[in-house]
Amino acid sequence: MSDHASRLAALRQQLAADRLDGFVVPLTDEHMSEYVGDYAQRLAWLTGFQGSAGAAVVLPAEAAIFTDGRYTLQVREQVDPASWSYVSVPATSIAQWLGEHAPQGGRIGYDPWLHTRAWVDEARRALADKGAELVAVDRNPVDAIWDGRPAPSDAVLTPYDDALAGRSSADKRTEVADWLADRGADAVVLSALDSIAWMFNVRGQDVSHTPVALAYALVNADATADLFVAPEKITDTVRQHLGNGVRLHDRSQFAQALRGLAGRRIAADPERAVAAIFDALDSGGARILSVRDPAVLAKAVKNPAEIGGHRAAQARDGAALSRFLRWFEGEAPKGALTELDAAARLQQFRAETGLLRDLSFDTISATGPHGAIPHYKVTAESNLRIMPGTLYLVDSGGQYADGTTDVTRVMPVGTPTAEMRDRFTRVLKGHIAIATAIFPAGTTGGQLDSFARRPLWEVGLDYPHGTGHGVGAYLSVHEGPQRIAAPNYPGGGPAEPLRAGMILSNEPGYYKAGDYGIRIENLVLTVEREVPGAEAPMLGFETLTFAPIERTLIDPALLTPAERDWLDAYHRDVIARIAPQLDGADRAWLEAKCAPI
Amino acid sequence: MSDHASRLAALRQQLAADRLDGFVVPLTDEHMSEYVGDYAQRLAWLTGFQGSAGAAVVLPAEAAIFTDGRYTLQVREQVDPASWSYVSVPATSIAQWLGEHAPQGGRIGYDPWLHTRAWVDEARRALADKGAELVAVDRNPVDAIWDGRPAPSDAVLTPYDDALAGRSSADKRTEVADWLADRGADAVVLSALDSIAWMFNVRGQDVSHTPVALAYALVNADATADLFVAPEKITDTVRQHLGNGVRLHDRSQFAQALRGLAGRRIAADPERAVAAIFDALDSGGARILSVRDPAVLAKAVKNPAEIGGHRAAQARDGAALSRFLRWFEGEAPKGALTELDAAARLQQFRAETGLLRDLSFDTISATGPHGAIPHYKVTAESNLRIMPGTLYLVDSGGQYADGTTDVTRVMPVGTPTAEMRDRFTRVLKGHIAIATAIFPAGTTGGQLDSFARRPLWEVGLDYPHGTGHGVGAYLSVHEGPQRIAAPNYPGGGPAEPLRAGMILSNEPGYYKAGDYGIRIENLVLTVEREVPGAEAPMLGFETLTFAPIERTLIDPALLTPAERDWLDAYHRDVIARIAPQLDGADRAWLEAKCAPI
Repeated sequence: MSDHASRLAALRQQLAADRLDGFVVPLTDEHMSEYVGDYAQRLAWLTGFQGSAGAAVVLPAEAAIFTDGRYTLQVREQVDPASWSYVSVPATSIAQWLGEHAPQGGRIGYDPWLHTRAWVDEARRALADKGAELVAVDRNPVDAIWDGRPAPSDAVLTPYDDALAGRSSADKRTEVADWLADRGADAVVLSALDSIAWMFNVRGQDVSHTPVALAYALVNADATADLFVAPEKITDTVRQHLGNGVRLHDRSQFAQALRGLAGRRIAADPERAVAAIFDALDSGGARILSVRDPAVLAKAVKNPAEIGGHRAAQARDGAALSRFLRWFEGEAPKGALTELDAAARLQQFRAETGLLRDLSFDTISATGPHGAIPHYKVTAESNLRIMPGTLYLVDSGGQYADGTTDVTRVMPVGTPTAEMRDRFTRVLKGHIAIATAIFPAGTTGGQLDSFARRPLWEVGLDYPHGTGHGVGAYLSVHEGPQRIAAPNYPGGGPAEPLRAGMILSNEPGYYKAGDYGIRIENLVLTVEREVPGAEAPMLGFETLTFAPIERTLIDPALLTPAERDWLDAYHRDVIARIAPQLDGADRAWLEAKCAPI
Repeated sequence: MSDHASRLAALRQQLAADRLDGFVVPLTDEHMSEYVGDYAQRLAWLTGFQGSAGAAVVLPAEAAIFTDGRYTLQVREQVDPASWSYVSVPATSIAQWLGEHAPQGGRIGYDPWLHTRAWVDEARRALADKGAELVAVDRNPVDAIWDGRPAPSDAVLTPYDDALAGRSSADKRTEVADWLADRGADAVVLSALDSIAWMFNVRGQDVSHTPVALAYALVNADATADLFVAPEKITDTVRQHLGNGVRLHDRSQFAQALRGLAGRRIAADPERAVAAIFDALDSGGARILSVRDPAVLAKAVKNPAEIGGHRAAQARDGAALSRFLRWFEGEAPKGALTELDAAARLQQFRAETGLLRDLSFDTISATGPHGAIPHYKVTAESNLRIMPGTLYLVDSGGQYADGTTDVTRVMPVGTPTAEMRDRFTRVLKGHIAIATAIFPAGTTGGQLDSFARRPLWEVGLDYPHGTGHGVGAYLSVHEGPQRIAAPNYPGGGPAEPLRAGMILSNEPGYYKAGDYGIRIENLVLTVEREVPGAEAPMLGFETLTFAPIERTLIDPALLTPAERDWLDAYHRDVIARIAPQLDGADRAWLEAKCAPI
């Protein structure tokens, strides 16, 4: 029996011992994080799935793994079909599937620290039709059988300079206090790790590639706060940085503190705070105001210091990427490079900036068919030699103190086919359609998404992921609330109006399964646009990412004159921002790469 | 005191007598109809507002009228600001406004036959914060004070030929029986008037411009049905047409019949059945399955007979409109025509087809500034002479036994300005962007809407309404569930996947308040598109409406070559379909109008 099959069998035994007929295993942590620490990687441990989003349900006689369109191929490579059936979300939700598959009268367990209340309500309703019950567990049965489960990180918190943050934590908390006063509330629960890092101007090292620390907080109506964090993570430096307005408590005291808020009006975010937080507030007699965490929008709308930092970080990162692309162009045709070699060399170029703190996510270094897996993660097992005659896709980013980067480029190894050039050019046309969009204030990302798809739709093609996600300021590379995606994309991001100061990715793609993948990704800043005669305030995007877009992959005949102008202007900007950072040979290469089309 | 002010005062007296602190007056009927019979025109009677969508709330010291972007201007012309404040939906919902304005501890009345349960729940929650209560009334207080309120229509039902419907009612009911079996349900409530007309292949005359009859129905698991309709509306002919499978009952017996369904599982549509229907089912002990009326989607996806009928009706209607446009071009510059004259002449051209049953809505015949009111309704009071030097907008349609039409054209009277031509051309570019869209199956109207707006957004402009609504087959000119509109458009239509067979309008516009309005509207049929190499089933639109698009309003320099090709091909189709129906002089005019750009 494979490791994963024996783990599944052990979990079924544990469920029987716990008198459960099923259990739900999401990929998140007690903070509803997208990326989680090793201690919370229950889904990967149980199933082998390495993607960044998914969930599993284990029943006595069947088990299912739920993934979205980004992982349709990957889940089939990593998870054994003998044990698991594959289910696509959002086409089928976990609740729907439970309603259809749970045994009549069964008891299905869930960990209330890993689900929202809305999820619990939906799953409970779906099970009710079968007379089945959803049961909160006290101890997660996966943890009970996970030998050698890593402990949560004990890394220390570090101050984040107010000059980089653009505002002090006290100033941010005063704004929250005003927000609480407007709503007649006494305090707000913060449980999202990036909200806490942003609110207190601190950073951590507890989650891979995201500089956040495991903590909870209450921000109070008098602008003081209670921060719940493991004591070993607090140094004198950070204690001093936090100041007198922040009372420190052990993280393990958080639920008890919530139960002590009887009669007080407490704001909590139903999308970001887990069910157990609401349960603790309820059982303690607090009056709950269900409302979005006030840090979410404040953090998404970058201030001038954050924007300035981002511009500097993107330019620095673009120079490192440009050096890599030149190196790759010389090395790859020799036929010896592997995906891991290329990823390592790219990280080295970034490290040579002297300012890299971390990658912002695992580099997607993908040759040929691996490029067709939108969120491919190269491992020692999957590692392939980079194959001549196909395309190489590299999606990567860095964490710098002044900004977070995320960029994708595609390079041909040898001569690309006419089909590859057609597809690449269509993806580029979609990318330009977003980059040049002008739209009235109040427009949502859901209204812009199709602009990026139309050139592919015209020839019967599409891509199975959103067009853009928000990006943090030395925080999460995937940051809400805004998103450019089809309006039915899960989580509500496409319904969020875009605001000046929001940073998003612009990353249409095309994936030919088993053959190659294409994605062109830059970060863009939402900005006000002066349009003469405009009848409403108008917005648009300023591109922040600068690195050459491979000209041999472009069929100029497919571009309109306006699209050619955009491309040439973009490449002039690449030269202006990147060339001064490069040495002679790199610089000459860049200038040739950025010649007019 | 004006009529409307005294009616408002009388209503406040009635509310005091009924021990209510407020009352909500929606514009709908017991069937959640968009267009209603005169007996249900409570909003117009009370406030003077003549638009087709809106609501009012009357409190002791204030009163508000709620309208959407289409009626921003019109409501200010028709409703007295001394008595009423104007509120825009969806920016502020009635429930939100009630939550902010209702008196603490107050009792706010509503008529449970005129609201959905979701509305009742939302309003109740909003009032709860104020300690205020939402109270169902037994008798509508507006009806209590409305002297001379018209009785509901007693027009008879008429059979709708199975050959035009494309399927027999028995066949449709068998499909519903299968649908009920799949859901383990015993019967489904139909309360939407167009669902009932479609399900039974009958038509009526109870609602202006929509050939439906006031009725309710239950369709049962054995494919029989119970139809609740006033006995005086049933003739022997229609009784024979309905057949033995349809039991007839008096409409007044409907609520009592629902209360008699104890223990049975009954499907009802929470968006289309009013709260009183759910209340009756609940109080009688039925088990309710809340699900969309199964006629809604079946009716929206037209069958070949309905599509063939539509093509014939659109061609006939296009010829009548073309004759009108030629007449208008000759008459308008003389300066004597009024808006009412033009509307009457257009109706006469339609009547001369010999097949017109009714208009499909009140003709929007709008000169100059009236064109900037998207849903302007010309009345004896508003009627203007058609002014030289400005634009004339005419949005109109006919009800024919084989189809329902809806078309908008704009004509200059004299020489249009450069600005008018720029705006008209941008609206045309948006119209063409929808007409030529190709998109994967599963795409929603919410994903296409921005294609129509982008040419206006580029110069800081937009239009305050959706881009397209569904259209019935000799039924409602506004038919759900599909819609092309921004994803947050009320009612969920933009989230409905488009399917081959759905008919929609394609009607972007531009409105310059106080000056002129532009709208270019054709109906389109959603069709499957064969795209060589496509990786998914693709859909697109076939334009159904044929009438010249005024060439003197087009600036060809703003069109791409592909857009010019579309326009020329469209005009060739206009000639092919319309010219054979015209006499010599009309035909020569049409051919000149349709020359290549």
